[in-house]
Formats: sequence, structure tokens, C-alpha cells
Amino acid sequence: MERVEIKTLFSNANNYANQQVTVCGWIKTLRDSKALCFIELNDGSCFINLQIVMEEAKLTNYREITKLNVGSAIIIHGNVVLTPEAKQPLEIHAVAAEIEGVSTPDYPLQKKRHSLEFLRTIQHLRPRTNTFSAAFRVRSAAAYAIHKFFQEDGFVYAHTPIITGSDCEGAGEMFRVTTLDSLNPPLTEQGRVDFSRDFFEKPASLTVSGQLEAECMALAFGKVYTFGPTFRAENSNTPRHAAEFWMIEPEIAFADLSDDMRLAERMVKFVISYVLQTCPQEMQFFNDFYDKDKALIERLTSIVNADFGCVTYTEAVELLKQNNEAFEYPVSWGCDLQTEHERFLTEQIFKKPVFVIDYPKEIKAFYMRLNSDGKTVAAMDMLVPGIGELIGGSQREERLDVLTSRMNELGLATEDYSWYLDLRRYGGTRHAGFGLGFERLVMYLTGITNIRDVLPFPRTTGLCEF
Amino acid sequence: MERVEIKTLFSNANNYANQQVTVCGWIKTLRDSKALCFIELNDGSCFINLQIVMEEAKLTNYREITKLNVGSAIIIHGNVVLTPEAKQPLEIHAVAAEIEGVSTPDYPLQKKRHSLEFLRTIQHLRPRTNTFSAAFRVRSAAAYAIHKFFQEDGFVYAHTPIITGSDCEGAGEMFRVTTLDSLNPPLTEQGRVDFSRDFFEKPASLTVSGQLEAECMALAFGKVYTFGPTFRAENSNTPRHAAEFWMIEPEIAFADLSDDMRLAERMVKFVISYVLQTCPQEMQFFNDFYDKDKALIERLTSIVNADFGCVTYTEAVELLKQNNEAFEYPVSWGCDLQTEHERFLTEQIFKKPVFVIDYPKEIKAFYMRLNSDGKTVAAMDMLVPGIGELIGGSQREERLDVLTSRMNELGLATEDYSWYLDLRRYGGTRHAGFGLGFERLVMYLTGITNIRDVLPFPRTTGLCEF
Repeated sequence: MERVEIKTLFSNANNYANQQVTVCGWIKTLRDSKALCFIELNDGSCFINLQIVMEEAKLTNYREITKLNVGSAIIIHGNVVLTPEAKQPLEIHAVAAEIEGVSTPDYPLQKKRHSLEFLRTIQHLRPRTNTFSAAFRVRSAAAYAIHKFFQEDGFVYAHTPIITGSDCEGAGEMFRVTTLDSLNPPLTEQGRVDFSRDFFEKPASLTVSGQLEAECMALAFGKVYTFGPTFRAENSNTPRHAAEFWMIEPEIAFADLSDDMRLAERMVKFVISYVLQTCPQEMQFFNDFYDKDKALIERLTSIVNADFGCVTYTEAVELLKQNNEAFEYPVSWGCDLQTEHERFLTEQIFKKPVFVIDYPKEIKAFYMRLNSDGKTVAAMDMLVPGIGELIGGSQREERLDVLTSRMNELGLATEDYSWYLDLRRYGGTRHAGFGLGFERLVMYLTGITNIRDVLPFPRTTGLCEF
Repeated sequence: MERVEIKTLFSNANNYANQQVTVCGWIKTLRDSKALCFIELNDGSCFINLQIVMEEAKLTNYREITKLNVGSAIIIHGNVVLTPEAKQPLEIHAVAAEIEGVSTPDYPLQKKRHSLEFLRTIQHLRPRTNTFSAAFRVRSAAAYAIHKFFQEDGFVYAHTPIITGSDCEGAGEMFRVTTLDSLNPPLTEQGRVDFSRDFFEKPASLTVSGQLEAECMALAFGKVYTFGPTFRAENSNTPRHAAEFWMIEPEIAFADLSDDMRLAERMVKFVISYVLQTCPQEMQFFNDFYDKDKALIERLTSIVNADFGCVTYTEAVELLKQNNEAFEYPVSWGCDLQTEHERFLTEQIFKKPVFVIDYPKEIKAFYMRLNSDGKTVAAMDMLVPGIGELIGGSQREERLDVLTSRMNELGLATEDYSWYLDLRRYGGTRHAGFGLGFERLVMYLTGITNIRDVLPFPRTTGLCEF
């Protein structure tokens, strides 16, 4: 079957003028009168629909076609007619139509507005709606932009393991991965579960971060990034948390915190530009229907053109304290910043993206590099208007003695991390990296406020369908 | 620190002639005499090393530097001297050197040949060796080539779920994912494990394939691909099996088996071309050190230029039967083809890549489209010289009645697949797809024969370190 995709037609309208073509697609809407019928057809190649005009006089199966339900798949042979005065550059005047697959009358996506909650119950069909068509296209474009940015800059893409024997951040509930009998697991003489008889001959979990492994790779390749799924078994039923999500974790050697911030800024700007450029229709849709001020595109464009600010945690706390009456949780030195504080900083004080750096070591992970003040670490969070923290990163502690004494302070068993410490024994260098939650980025790009609506098949507490 | 990457130096040699630059990197080798020292320096930006020349007379810390162990990280300030007669286009004559991080004398990667088996025990350090530097660079380039191929062709990248409540292929041991207490799980009144109290309120596993979910996406977007980790809990300790590996699964709508084959052929050719082009030094290394005929590049190039053959399973069995004496397992109609048969077909009979199509339905999965003979299904395997099967795919059964009766035959509960069957109820179209094991592709590209050596941190039976 020689057919042309709708996207190809639209982007080469003049070449196809008055040509006969074959198009395939699904019926989005169908309006018919006695002798004339208009079909909005979508074949998935682009966000927008193609108008098909059918005349009863010209089609032997006109009655059959016009009785089709929304969602049916059809094949249309017809002539391309340019429509310079209309929204779309062309339409098709059908000369023949074939039914590829009908849609039964109980099709859940009838032409009306469906709530996002309802659509979550039909995850296998919701990609056919405007919102999810746009969301997953933007998701795909953003994912590619990430790869493009790093690959063109000479980074090596590192596939860090999903199943892991170690808990990187020493934090967060993890999922156990096992093949042992769940009812009657083998036991040791002491009556404990005998994990030596499990698949990996020890307890194994789903990774919460690929960072430690990425460090191994960075100390060989200089610049690497990961892009893969990560997991949290947290029982938190919020619009911002999923049990399974994708994360990007670049890691760079011979680099310090300011190199890290420059990289994060360049990356975010690149991804936003790429998505605005490659998904103009989808972004216009989100701008018009998902942003209360219809200012999404403007806001994203301003990020691309902004010089990101930078402030130390200590300075930030001083600035925020002056506005403590505005916050649910007042700030003081040593506390973790909440979203309300982050948004106040970037939206009210700086009015642009801003890095907060040099956090108290107590609220950050063991591997972050201790500053010379002995109290703060070389960490950075990138805060952006509308969402707060988008990226968190740090320079890593490359000094073996400082790192081990910090681990001892925290009660981490250094023998479990011997390979990680080896990186400091054998040609350790200053290095840094950050983590970007991919879904948070897609939410930021689209204005979608629930993480369940940017993941094709979200996994959350109690939910693992499809 | 304003430094230049070695890759940048090499690719712009003339621009840097006689300039003073700063380079960073790890010492690969160090040869010193009383007054002169040569260091091979690698910073990870490219496969090859940069030669540093140091004179005792010019460096105050000459003694200290020349005593450094292999693997130490250093920073060199020096002048670029073009070396048109040498293998590399330039070298650096040092004017100053700094130690960034020493490497203690027990560094396991001393300059000598290490076995791949030994290197598997130091996965955190082996990316620093030539073999793994080349392997993981090729892996990264191949991964990007996959994305580039599909994205530039208008495919949507679909993140299918890792944790799943369903077992796609109805085959293969799966890993269970749980947060229940492993020793004392909650029980139902009947004394079974009460999975309603597990994280997802039902049993959950790690995915073996994203295909069924990719079909949902393809019937909205027309053309989609997945690229993510998949899992098999098979207790098979072979050089070709890992418990965790990455898979690419494209799925196309309004497409049949021949569209599927054309797509697979174009994709393979694109990826090979891209890797040969972007990793010439790495590929030369594999050609010279990992191919017994030193013919790797020639073989890959011939694939790019070949017209792939096509033969039905039935024809293939006839051809093979004439050579049954050559095989460990003689073939007859109905049997699954083994690697020895696949290689014979592609290497001896066709002498180029070949698709075998229309397999007996008994040896293929339930979702493959039944041919009109009632005995075979529209499946395809792509066989390539040197390895056998590289890709397996099929046209999917889009006819609801045929699909459900096939599922009943196989004892699959249709109610577990209601969402999958919905795709046939609501605008189902002919569609097809295939699966490519990414590690097998990397093995094919590099000539590496053990899957443990193309995965940065392999997970296999009893092995889940780092």
C-alpha cells in the first residue's frame, strides 16, 4: 500500500496540489449531511487532523462510511485540494474509501470532554486524545533533545544497572527483586530468609539512582550521562510522585560545581528550545488549554534567554527570612527549602531561574564535597519559576579521607562501598554531576500538573495496570 | 580551569599549533629516562591517547611526576607541537604539571594484558582499558543511532513500563517486585500470600517486553519505538544471556510484514553506518584485535551495501534438510531453527543477511498474525552472518475473533488481556513490529562474544555487584 503520512502532506502541501493520494488514519470527528460528509482524520504522524471531504455522489460506500463510529480506522484515496484560506493548508476530496477497522459503539472516547481522572482508567486508549497525543509527543521530543545535547557535546551514554545490590543515596524505600517463593522462602539455620538461594545469591533491589555507577564511568570517559528508569517504593499518593520514573544523571570529571551549573543551564535551554521548535502545535495547545495565563510559551522562551542567577543557601535563607510571614513553614538556617520557598526565590526575588548552592551538609547526601567552612557542601539546586526545583546536583567528594570520615559520621559501612572508594584511590579527580527527573521536566514543558499524565503507563501506590 | 579536551585538540590540530594549552587526563603509560619522560595521556574524550613530552630541565616537579603510577590523574600545561610524521597529529611539550589525583601502587590495571574474566571482577575500573573504552563508546554511539534513526523518521519514543502486572509473551521466568516482608508476608484467610497488601495491591514483576504497550501507542501515533531495559530470570549461565538487558521494540500501524522487514533492514544499515562513521578508531581496534580474520569492518560494510534476502520457513527447512548431516540437530518442518541452522542459511546459502518468514504457529507467540494457510504466522527473523538471529518480529493479529480463538487454544485468559483486545475493538488496523536485543547488536558491531563485556554492569545468575 503506497500511502502518504499526513505530516508529509502538510509540510509539502504545494508538491501534492491536485495529486491523488492515499491516506490512512482514525476518524476523530465525522459530520455528515445527506450528500456531503466531513471527516477529521488523524494518522498519528502529527498532532493536527486532516480534513476529508466526501460526496455521496462519488462514493459507492458513502452510507457505510458515514455510519462509522469515532475511532474507526479508514483508508482514503482522494485528491489534494489546497485551502490557503483555511487553518490547514489542504484537504482531501475522496474518490474512494475503505474500512480498515471499525470502532464499536461502546468506544469510550466519544467526542466530548473527558476528565483526566477518567482517562487514567483507559491508559491504553488515552494516547488518542489531544492532551495525551501532545503530551507524549513532547515527551518523546524532550527525550531525544536530551540525547542530542549530550551526544553532540561528546558525552558517553552509560546504561547503569536497574537491579542493584546497593542503595545509592542511603535513603528512600526500595523495591525488592526476587525469584524466591513468596510463601515459603528458604531459610537459614538462624531462621532468616536465605538470600544466598535467591537469583543473585543476595538481596537485590530496583535502583534509586545510577549516580555512583555513573561516577565509575565518568572517571574513564570524562563526560557521561545516564537516562533510564529509577524507582521509589514510597507510599506517597501525590500528584508529583510515581513509583517508576525516568532520570537523567550526567557526571563530569575534571569539573567543579560551577562547571556543573553551566552544564545544567545549557542543557535546560537546549531542551526547551528543541521542544519549542519541533512541537509548535503541541506547545500551542498546552499554552492555550493548560496554562491559566496562556503564557507557557512566553515563560519557556524567557528561560532560554535568561542568565540564570546564583545565590548561596545562606544568602537565600537571609532573603527568605524577610518574608517568613508569607510561608506555611518559616525558614531558618539548616532547614530544607520547601517548594514554597523555592518558588518565592525564583518567582518573586530573582524573577528568573536561579541556582542555590552550598547547602548545610546535614540536609544533603554523603558524597557531596565538603566546603572549606566545614559546614556546607558544594551542592546546587536549580530552581525555575512555576515549579521550584528542577535539578539537583553537586560536586562529589574526591578526597578519600574526607569521604570516609563523612561516611563514618553517617554510619555507612565503608566496606559496602569499596568500589566507590576505589575511584578515590586510583586517579581520583574533582568531578560533579546532577540529576534531572525527566517527568518533572515534561510537566514543566507542558504545564501538566499530575505526573500520572506525563507517563504513558504510570506506576503509583496500588496502581500497576496495563 | 580553562582546559581543552584531547579530542578537540586532535580534530583541530592546525589551529592549536604552537599554542599553549592545558590538558587533563589519566596516565596510561609513562616511560622516563634521566632527563626526558613520555606520558600517554587519556582524558576519556576519545579512544586514543595524547603524548606528553616532559624535560627534567623544564619542570620543577619532574621527579615527582615521573614517579606517579599508571592511572594517576594529572593536569599538564604545555605547548602544542605538530607531529605530521607520527601516528597522532600532535604532542604536548610540558611547561608545567600538576597532580590531580595519585593512583596507589596496588592499582589493578597495571600495564599488561588482563583477561576479560579478571576485568569482570573490577567493573568499576575496566572502562579505563582499551577494550571497554572502545566497547562502551560503540554502545553509546549505537544507542544514539537508534534514537536518531527513529526520531528523524517521525517515530514517537514510548517509555513502556518496567514494573508490570502482566506477562507479555506468556513465556520466560520473571522477577517479582515487592515490598512485602520477605520472612513473614501477610496471608489471606486461605493461607496464601496476600498480595493486596503489596505495594501495587497485586503481584508485580519486571517486564520481559514492552510490545503490548507499544501496540497501544502505535494505534495512536502510527509509528512508535521503545528503548528500555527488559528482564529474564532464567538460570542460564551462557555467554549470550543476561538477566537485565536493553531492548528496542518498534511498532508500526497500517503496516504489514513486508513493511516491518523494510524497517528492520533500514534500521540495521543506519546503525552500522553511523557507528563506522563516528567510531573509526574503536572499530579499527575491534577489527584488529577481536576478529580472527581482521575482517569485522569489511563484514559490516558489506551488510550496509547488501540487499537482504528473504525466504519462507518452509523453503528454508527444505534448503537446510539437504545439509542435515552438517548439523548437531537435524531440521524438519515444525522444529525451531537453532543458531547453527540460522548461520548456515545466512553464511553458506545466502552469503548475506536474510529474513526467514512465515513460521509454524506452534513455535511462535499468540499475537502473531495467522496466515491464510492456517498453519503459519506472519513472523520474521532477521539472520546475519557471524551471529544468526539479530531481530525477531511479526505482523500482529488484528482480527479480534482470530486472536481470541488463538488465545483460547493456548489457554490464555482473555479477561487478563481485555485492554489488549480493546485495540482490536476500537479502530484496529493491520500493524507490525519487531524486537532487537541491544546487547546482541553491540556484540555484533564489536565482535565481543560475551554479553557480560558489552554491559557496563552486567546482571547474571548470582551476579549483581556494583
